[in-house]
Amino acid sequence: MRIVVTGAAGMIGRKLTERLVLDGAIGDTAIAHVTLSDIVEPTPPENPPFAVDSVKADIGARDSADRLTAGRPDVIFHLGAIVSGEAEQDFDKGYRINLDGTRHLLEAIRALDAYRPRLVFASSIAVFGAPFPDPIPDNFFHTPLTSYGTQKAVDELLLCDYTRKGFVDGIGIRLPTICVRPGAPNKAASGFFSNIIREPLAGKDAFLPVSEDVMHWHASPRSAVDFFIHGAGIDGDAVGPRRCLTMPGVAATVAEQIAALRSVAGDRVADRIKRQPDEAIMRIVAGWPTRFSAERARELGFAADRDFAAIIRAHIDDELGGSWVA
Amino acid sequence: MRIVVTGAAGMIGRKLTERLVLDGAIGDTAIAHVTLSDIVEPTPPENPPFAVDSVKADIGARDSADRLTAGRPDVIFHLGAIVSGEAEQDFDKGYRINLDGTRHLLEAIRALDAYRPRLVFASSIAVFGAPFPDPIPDNFFHTPLTSYGTQKAVDELLLCDYTRKGFVDGIGIRLPTICVRPGAPNKAASGFFSNIIREPLAGKDAFLPVSEDVMHWHASPRSAVDFFIHGAGIDGDAVGPRRCLTMPGVAATVAEQIAALRSVAGDRVADRIKRQPDEAIMRIVAGWPTRFSAERARELGFAADRDFAAIIRAHIDDELGGSWVA
Repeated sequence: MRIVVTGAAGMIGRKLTERLVLDGAIGDTAIAHVTLSDIVEPTPPENPPFAVDSVKADIGARDSADRLTAGRPDVIFHLGAIVSGEAEQDFDKGYRINLDGTRHLLEAIRALDAYRPRLVFASSIAVFGAPFPDPIPDNFFHTPLTSYGTQKAVDELLLCDYTRKGFVDGIGIRLPTICVRPGAPNKAASGFFSNIIREPLAGKDAFLPVSEDVMHWHASPRSAVDFFIHGAGIDGDAVGPRRCLTMPGVAATVAEQIAALRSVAGDRVADRIKRQPDEAIMRIVAGWPTRFSAERARELGFAADRDFAAIIRAHIDDELGGSWVA
Repeated sequence: MRIVVTGAAGMIGRKLTERLVLDGAIGDTAIAHVTLSDIVEPTPPENPPFAVDSVKADIGARDSADRLTAGRPDVIFHLGAIVSGEAEQDFDKGYRINLDGTRHLLEAIRALDAYRPRLVFASSIAVFGAPFPDPIPDNFFHTPLTSYGTQKAVDELLLCDYTRKGFVDGIGIRLPTICVRPGAPNKAASGFFSNIIREPLAGKDAFLPVSEDVMHWHASPRSAVDFFIHGAGIDGDAVGPRRCLTMPGVAATVAEQIAALRSVAGDRVADRIKRQPDEAIMRIVAGWPTRFSAERARELGFAADRDFAAIIRAHIDDELGGSWVA
């Protein structure tokens, strides 16, 4: 089996690559070759059980799509995108990378004869915008309130139409907000959801800009990788024509997040969270979804983290070697 | 006020032009200039109360969009598109005209400084695909089962995002199936809805390919024109960020259509409908929507035909000079 990963230098891309190295297969099919692609050349994994190409490619350019599909990969994980904040600031770049990039990839696939790969596409709950019913059902309409969400929603429509026409075998994975994101504090409006867990566990203060009753929809990086792997192997006919799925997640209020941190790591850690209300962030977050039914994805075998404590423990295990600064 | 109409040579485009000539204004604002555009040069109206340019333009080409917006029209009615059947047969042409054409128009508008026209966009209930709840609520998701429906759904998303960013002031008019379409019998799968009314009134037999319990969502050409005119004048802030609206229509089964024809025009006319089941058409029609709540559009002042008999009478008045072949 041959695999391509776009956005392979990103956080999820790196973790997905690690998982492919660990498993050496998807389902029962051994992986022979993996191409890792990103706007910077991805660092290849050490001692992989398959051949690896690491490619610097701008997915906003059609020739990149032709290059990535030339080897006729069986599975393409399309994670490459610019993030929400950047897509909002740079309108042209957002459309070029997040919309045209996906369309180029679909067109490059369609241009090849007798070729119909599984394309696992990273979408986002940003395709939804307030006001919402609670919980948000699987048949709720796309009402993005950002250019990023618009671009992902357009990509979802294209993925379904190209699949319906038999040009590709697409699965759209609508990710919850990923928590806990490793690395340095992020300036994204959603960054605080990860910051208030990651920083206290590292012995540092974290600032909470919203009230504790804010509820949101989360998945660990480990679950996100599980979603992509499961999406690569799933039977497309069982999914039917509605190929884009809201992934199951953990609905938690900030208060529940803090309580989970307290139960897992103790009072001293939880007390490192400092209240610092920020009106601008509160306004942005007010437009975000709270919780979803995600029934279809669950029926199709996609599984969420058990609860928010499990999300915290996944971070401690995967990023901190099992311990933290008490 | 300056106006541009794309798709002006089409059936709705011609009727919209007649209405602009009749009214000479939109709301309280007199019309000074109208540009009529289509892939063939539209026939200009006789004795219009405003200046008219008739332009042959391929809306799939970006320079056409630049040309049409150069005069900074206050209102653009964007009706230009290729129809469902052709978009399904010619994948590239469908995307080029129906998706890229709309995007070019939005980009041409965005390229002009201090310019934010009202763009009234012709969308379609083809953005929806079976299975459906009954009635279909305003917040039901887009599940197109055709490339045409996909292209219109993408256009709707773009229209909302460009509006949200302040580049344009868009309103999307999601049209019911237009009935009774004047002119020769149409080979579109939906053609029979009009054929079984128009042909018997002209003294000819018409063939019914589906069972009489098939329900569908209809509006007269006169109502369609009303929707566009109302959409041109409506307050965008009152519509909010969800700028695309399912228009109110008349939900009627084929049996109810035939009964209405019988009540309006008598038994001899209604008996000219001959049953001729067609499995292929039945399969296509099974994926189509039946009825919608259309609550938001009604609240915003869009009004449907009173019932199916009113749709038939509109055809008799507007196309047949008030009489028919008894």
